[in-house]
Amino acid sequence: MRQTLSIVKIGGNLIEDDAALHSFLTAFSELSGPKILVHGGGKKASEVLSKLGIVPKMVNGRRITDQGTLEVVIMVYAGLVNKEIVARLQALNCNALGMSGADADTIQAQKRPVQEVDYGFAGDITSVNSEKLYQILQLGLTPVFCALTHDGEGQLLNTNADTIASEIAIGLSAGFHTVLYYCFELPGVLEDVNDPNSIITKIDHALYQKLVDKGSIAQGMLPKMHNAFASLKSGVQEVRIGNLGLFQKENKNYTTLVG
Amino acid sequence: MRQTLSIVKIGGNLIEDDAALHSFLTAFSELSGPKILVHGGGKKASEVLSKLGIVPKMVNGRRITDQGTLEVVIMVYAGLVNKEIVARLQALNCNALGMSGADADTIQAQKRPVQEVDYGFAGDITSVNSEKLYQILQLGLTPVFCALTHDGEGQLLNTNADTIASEIAIGLSAGFHTVLYYCFELPGVLEDVNDPNSIITKIDHALYQKLVDKGSIAQGMLPKMHNAFASLKSGVQEVRIGNLGLFQKENKNYTTLVG
Repeated sequence: MRQTLSIVKIGGNLIEDDAALHSFLTAFSELSGPKILVHGGGKKASEVLSKLGIVPKMVNGRRITDQGTLEVVIMVYAGLVNKEIVARLQALNCNALGMSGADADTIQAQKRPVQEVDYGFAGDITSVNSEKLYQILQLGLTPVFCALTHDGEGQLLNTNADTIASEIAIGLSAGFHTVLYYCFELPGVLEDVNDPNSIITKIDHALYQKLVDKGSIAQGMLPKMHNAFASLKSGVQEVRIGNLGLFQKENKNYTTLVG
Repeated sequence: MRQTLSIVKIGGNLIEDDAALHSFLTAFSELSGPKILVHGGGKKASEVLSKLGIVPKMVNGRRITDQGTLEVVIMVYAGLVNKEIVARLQALNCNALGMSGADADTIQAQKRPVQEVDYGFAGDITSVNSEKLYQILQLGLTPVFCALTHDGEGQLLNTNADTIASEIAIGLSAGFHTVLYYCFELPGVLEDVNDPNSIITKIDHALYQKLVDKGSIAQGMLPKMHNAFASLKSGVQEVRIGNLGLFQKENKNYTTLVG
């Protein structure tokens, strides 16, 4: 049986709540076996942008990354948030290695082509260097990825963290039993968004379609689930959505997606 | 004969001049054998601090790192400057891995004890994890260090980049023939600071003392040379001070320090 590799994506709201972040990092550091953490930066970037007098531009919930915004995103994601998480994980005896996709040439992307919207320096992933990632994991290190990739020609690109997590999971699924976790403040996918006890414990593709058609999946959850099902089709063994409970096998307070 | 390892420290002035940085990174990427780059952040940090309305505090040419300053230093050093250099090196086919001392637990430090001056979150290096660095070099990766370390208990610390370079060189000198380069805008240690042709090509400890006594070593050069002679005593084989010429064996436009 192949070794299990855990790829955990952590949401922006968890990063901003110090107590929640501490609980998360403790649970993460206790996960056995090789593991990878992926984080965004969320509101912290908006905060620094506004302090610097740069007005955040959003279209359809996606950030437009102009040059000034890119510099702030790099500072916050790869600097402040990434190194804070790495230093804290070290204190929890987890040997973390903070990375962007440019580091060790792990994730290449192309600048999103301009169609209706010019997203600026936004990257769509073209390749994951799974061999290099495998070697880094073999050293006993835990990669901690921020939401940045590069184009191989010197340009850093702002890239969706959910997609980074699923692409890494897909890229490494040939060598590991890969489990992808989307970890955020809710305990899972909810039947009723106002009732935290209405967790749907298992969703297959048919149920997913039904929920999409009913319009009962929250806006922010849709791309996550889309990524999740795409990664299940591409070799990822399991996807779990929820909060800290998803790290405990006995606890069923999370949603499992099955292909 | 042991393999040669090059440890190159690049100064802040080189980072801010785009053309100079490009020439440097090209020369660096062409260095054969394993290599490590160490950079500060210099004026860029002061620039962001001032934009955010934080007044940089300096005592005796050293930055006082309070909490707000530390956050900016992390953003600029580990974020903006480090990732820009990494992405550019990737474009030059150098497989760079951006790091702070917290990453892979490579450099631990202790918060500088408060004596006459409280330097805030400034770190004095206590250990270099040469085994982990060796393993990373074995993967064909080129570590690019920013001027940050950690205390192992979750705290990042602002740390002098010259010292990081010399401590890494000392730490790895048992396994490699280590050559330490201090690379900046001047062609070497000058007899007359106003005459760029007055390079002193070789300085031993006796000459160093004589130059110090004469007061002919520029203020910023003193700690560099102090670090250099300390590292030569501790196992480093060679120290070179200068600009791009120091990467060319035939060129003597640099200063070599000998123990």
